[in-house]
Amino acid sequence: MKAKIIITPKKAVVDPQGKAVQRALEQLGYQGSEAVHVGHYLEIETTGDPETARQQLDHACHKFLSNPVIEDYRLELSDS
Amino acid sequence: MKAKIIITPKKAVVDPQGKAVQRALEQLGYQGSEAVHVGHYLEIETTGDPETARQQLDHACHKFLSNPVIEDYRLELSDS
Repeated sequence: MKAKIIITPKKAVVDPQGKAVQRALEQLGYQGSEAVHVGHYLEIETTGDPETARQQLDHACHKFLSNPVIEDYRLELSDS
Repeated sequence: MKAKIIITPKKAVVDPQGKAVQRALEQLGYQGSEAVHVGHYLEIETTGDPETARQQLDHACHKFLSNPVIEDYRLELSDS
């Protein structure tokens, strides 16, 4: 079983890394970008009961994988 | 239109950040994790022709958003 966690800065939070990527894209000649958000991606290969895994990973996301003050996270569990 | 880019270390590459997260999960009492991979996630709000956007972003991914020697990337374009 695979857990995929996407952690992104909240929309209201200044995202200097996103701004830097946006500027770099513009300098590369790509004019179409309106906004860029940069976050983290975690892939966790896990075993055991899916419901327990989800609860524990949700707890871990909230407690130490993300900073809930400035970041949102999305947790998905899939079989492959 | 939204482009989502997931950049992960190649499986053969040592991933110290992933190892650190795995150890931290174990210390938190979560024993189910077999492997953890930590990567980046980029969300780019973009306009214009989807096919052109895909080509340009693919080029950008290859050229400066990821390091093709040690990282893989996955690019998805969606309407929302």
